[in-house]
Amino acid sequence: MNRDADRHHFEDLAVGQTYRSTETVTITAERIKSFAAEFDPQPFHLDEAAAKTTFFQGLAASGWHTASVTMRLLVKSDLRPVGGTIGAGGDTLKWPRATRPGDVLRLEIEVIEARPSQSRPELGVVKLRLTTYNQKDEVVQIATPVLMVPRRPR
Amino acid sequence: MNRDADRHHFEDLAVGQTYRSTETVTITAERIKSFAAEFDPQPFHLDEAAAKTTFFQGLAASGWHTASVTMRLLVKSDLRPVGGTIGAGGDTLKWPRATRPGDVLRLEIEVIEARPSQSRPELGVVKLRLTTYNQKDEVVQIATPVLMVPRRPR
Repeated sequence: MNRDADRHHFEDLAVGQTYRSTETVTITAERIKSFAAEFDPQPFHLDEAAAKTTFFQGLAASGWHTASVTMRLLVKSDLRPVGGTIGAGGDTLKWPRATRPGDVLRLEIEVIEARPSQSRPELGVVKLRLTTYNQKDEVVQIATPVLMVPRRPR
Repeated sequence: MNRDADRHHFEDLAVGQTYRSTETVTITAERIKSFAAEFDPQPFHLDEAAAKTTFFQGLAASGWHTASVTMRLLVKSDLRPVGGTIGAGGDTLKWPRATRPGDVLRLEIEVIEARPSQSRPELGVVKLRLTTYNQKDEVVQIATPVLMVPRRPR
């Protein structure tokens, strides 16, 4: 048994390929508020009534909550690099619309760059465009992380 | 009483100013694992023994955990925009070093751009460089978010 048989090496990935999440995540008001209490304690993420008079005009998830859920959707997608989904960072992270209570999030993934690492010959560098959608197919996050993906041994 | 008296309008902020977190956050192995179980369920974030043979060579926090803690440090800093700390996204997010169990994180903040919004005359656009440090003064995250900061009414 090769436990990597269903996983992707760098050589399996090419610009233009698309992948997607294999599950969804439903965002509850309770988790919006408890996430915010720990990581982003501001009125528009903590309390429905207080949120009404803010920029968001109602309870909204922290962008970092949306980003963290997006990571889960990426790990639970059909893009499965050998060794895991390991990001080195990224150069775009945008929240065009707030995530709201009751939203059901899913992820679409596109490979937008793929090149061998200059410094580490055993790795490839793969840039993705991640687009996180709610149940109305509205975009709640766009991110372009870079993953380190092992090359297939010769 | 002006509840905004201790808060910053756009006009109070200028390129080169520095701010910092007013508290620290200690990262426990338990929270690394529970955060990962919800948002980034991969062996190197979930289990000390399994993590040893991975890229990280030991238990490491999800980058999104580090990013979320950084948001708390920003909210709990001496940079206090009127209306809250509201990000529109950013164009850099890097994790040069993993956050490990027992790390104590703090944040340094620099204003690197400040301009009036083209589309919304009541707002300014302020780009920050956020550098998150551990207790050894090693950098665990660099981010450059853009905040929307209200202009002072005339």
